[in-house]
Amino acid sequence: MAKKAMVYIQSGGPTSVINSSLYGAIKEAQAHPEEISHIYGSLHGIEGLLCDELIDLGQEDEKTIELLKQTPGSILGTSRHKLPKDYHDKEYQAIIDTLRKHNIGYVFVNGGNDSMDTCAKLSALCKELNLDIKVMGVPKTVDNDLAETDHSNGFGSAAKYIINTVKEICIDASCYKNGKVFIIEIMGRNAGWLTAAVDLLPKETRPDFIYLPENKFDLEKFLKDIKAKFDQKGYVIAAISEGIEFERDESNVRIDSFGHKQLGGAAADLAKIVDERLDLKTRSIELSLPQRAYSFLTSKVDQDETIMCGRLAVQKALEGMSGHMIAIKRVSSNPYKASFEPVDITKIANVERKVPTSMMKDDTCMNASFREYCLPLIQGEINIEYENGIIKSAVLKKVRVK
Amino acid sequence: MAKKAMVYIQSGGPTSVINSSLYGAIKEAQAHPEEISHIYGSLHGIEGLLCDELIDLGQEDEKTIELLKQTPGSILGTSRHKLPKDYHDKEYQAIIDTLRKHNIGYVFVNGGNDSMDTCAKLSALCKELNLDIKVMGVPKTVDNDLAETDHSNGFGSAAKYIINTVKEICIDASCYKNGKVFIIEIMGRNAGWLTAAVDLLPKETRPDFIYLPENKFDLEKFLKDIKAKFDQKGYVIAAISEGIEFERDESNVRIDSFGHKQLGGAAADLAKIVDERLDLKTRSIELSLPQRAYSFLTSKVDQDETIMCGRLAVQKALEGMSGHMIAIKRVSSNPYKASFEPVDITKIANVERKVPTSMMKDDTCMNASFREYCLPLIQGEINIEYENGIIKSAVLKKVRVK
Repeated sequence: MAKKAMVYIQSGGPTSVINSSLYGAIKEAQAHPEEISHIYGSLHGIEGLLCDELIDLGQEDEKTIELLKQTPGSILGTSRHKLPKDYHDKEYQAIIDTLRKHNIGYVFVNGGNDSMDTCAKLSALCKELNLDIKVMGVPKTVDNDLAETDHSNGFGSAAKYIINTVKEICIDASCYKNGKVFIIEIMGRNAGWLTAAVDLLPKETRPDFIYLPENKFDLEKFLKDIKAKFDQKGYVIAAISEGIEFERDESNVRIDSFGHKQLGGAAADLAKIVDERLDLKTRSIELSLPQRAYSFLTSKVDQDETIMCGRLAVQKALEGMSGHMIAIKRVSSNPYKASFEPVDITKIANVERKVPTSMMKDDTCMNASFREYCLPLIQGEINIEYENGIIKSAVLKKVRVK
Repeated sequence: MAKKAMVYIQSGGPTSVINSSLYGAIKEAQAHPEEISHIYGSLHGIEGLLCDELIDLGQEDEKTIELLKQTPGSILGTSRHKLPKDYHDKEYQAIIDTLRKHNIGYVFVNGGNDSMDTCAKLSALCKELNLDIKVMGVPKTVDNDLAETDHSNGFGSAAKYIINTVKEICIDASCYKNGKVFIIEIMGRNAGWLTAAVDLLPKETRPDFIYLPENKFDLEKFLKDIKAKFDQKGYVIAAISEGIEFERDESNVRIDSFGHKQLGGAAADLAKIVDERLDLKTRSIELSLPQRAYSFLTSKVDQDETIMCGRLAVQKALEGMSGHMIAIKRVSSNPYKASFEPVDITKIANVERKVPTSMMKDDTCMNASFREYCLPLIQGEINIEYENGIIKSAVLKKVRVK
């Protein structure tokens, strides 16, 4: 078998372990020098292949590669670019040109459902053109909404950050005699997995109510529940997914320069309604970007599985597989055991997996089956390396491939 | 000397090390059983003395006391109640009644400038009434604005959390080819110490601009700077103190039920202005409550000093001192050395210490003297005990004193 180069693509929103997948893929590739000639990274997702902007990861030193495991964000840069449907589009020609120019035989796409669409298109194209290029998917999304996998790389760490942060907020909120209504906004447009995770907290530091986008949000019932709980305990904490729907004051919805409504701000709007309708002091807290960008509370289970997915994607590609994503299958929850297997990418692209009703006690609380599912995923802590009180992060040399 | 009880009061906003002061005071008190008969905690700040709501901390087990060091929030509850000016007010009589009823000889007030006002009033009252009760202050505030001390307990840990969190946000923000304007809002109404702290970050993960309330905020210059930086690097990050002043859209300023304007939301308002005036995609991030409630990034230096302040307050009270707060004096920055000394409380109450101009390079950047000042305060990490992936917190039995 002739030696070929590999290229690695990071796509969609970052997670705290997205660079751990890359670490796994690099480590596995380094173990196969007889098959892989070069380890390239595509800058800014698929755009790197479109514009022939690749870097040579083989030029990075060992220490930097190790630090990837505690570096959040997409170190290669990311993109939300969606490839066109028509395979005759010039974008595909540009990608093929880049792949041929650098003698690339292996492409890895690390991302969520949208990114698996990119992966599926590239893989189908290579097959159609009869190119000997293997394209494999590496799962990633804090939202945990990828189909065909028990859970997604990145979810466990985001959940662990959210759970522990919400716990600290709950402790802080309980300190005053005259309390407030706290509304905490958590990521999740259509799938409420991350919000549901706070249900793992011990009762005394758990939000009183949890609202997922999977359930229809009933504003009047919400206000009634908040009022009753406030009267009973003197303060209330509600955790909401950013995607819950209610009548919003449109003047507060931010519109970006492309005319798209920007997410976020649901808690602020809801707090305003509570304030006006119930005349209670309120405070909204949006957990915002740190949810997906926090290295301090990385789950060891999540990181280990993430590294393994990166490794396996490379192994399977070398075995000749293409058009598949490495999925995680749960063997047992207690003790927790998981196995890995490749799944046909077309079953995953553009599909969203939501929280099933079978995991809910009612529309503001999860049940034991959810807790059994979620608890193993936040286990274990990683060792963090600091320098002068600041966590160390990898900084790549980014040597461009000519 | 007759044995007397002590009572400990937590006051004002919580910090991540406020319970470490309590830990230090308890440990020191336990070492003096021949002088201190009981260790009481006042529930909800001064309100516990007003309403005779005390708990017996001597009933808590060793393990719970140890966990105080990683438990954020005011575990005794807190209060923002301000004592009246008139010593003949019935509130003072109620306090004296409680102190006498429980044979209390030592009162400790742990708080910021407002709380030191409580401490000053209590101490003066006891002196005037010729009561043999020693009242001592234990410093605490994330804002770092207490006078007569090099820095305040809680500041180093809050700064460490903010620095590391802003760093992760900066990494995340740099991932996209088409970037945004990020505006990060940090605590500090009149003093910008916490916002200034992000200047300690390495250049590649440092906000481009820092805005403190000490400097007049010039909106037009801000917009010009943001635009120029965006054109140059494709995204911009600005860190602002919540207290910077500019013309706000009053419809967005939240008013609570007492008619007070609620802080927060400055970044959101500023983002709206950037969006409208510069037509750039913007995102505001308010670091919110976790800044003062985060145990994971507690600074070891801060925690050690905080425990020492709690211990020394007890020691000094036992030596007969009253009306003083334990202040921290810096001996040297490199290597960092500090000493502790009691300072007359009347010099501290209601005074705010701001960031001096001598620590600023210009109005959006700090200089070397600030970095020399701040860097030692975020050093060292604490060992955190987890249970099932969730940080353990102390839960008190709260045995009421009859």
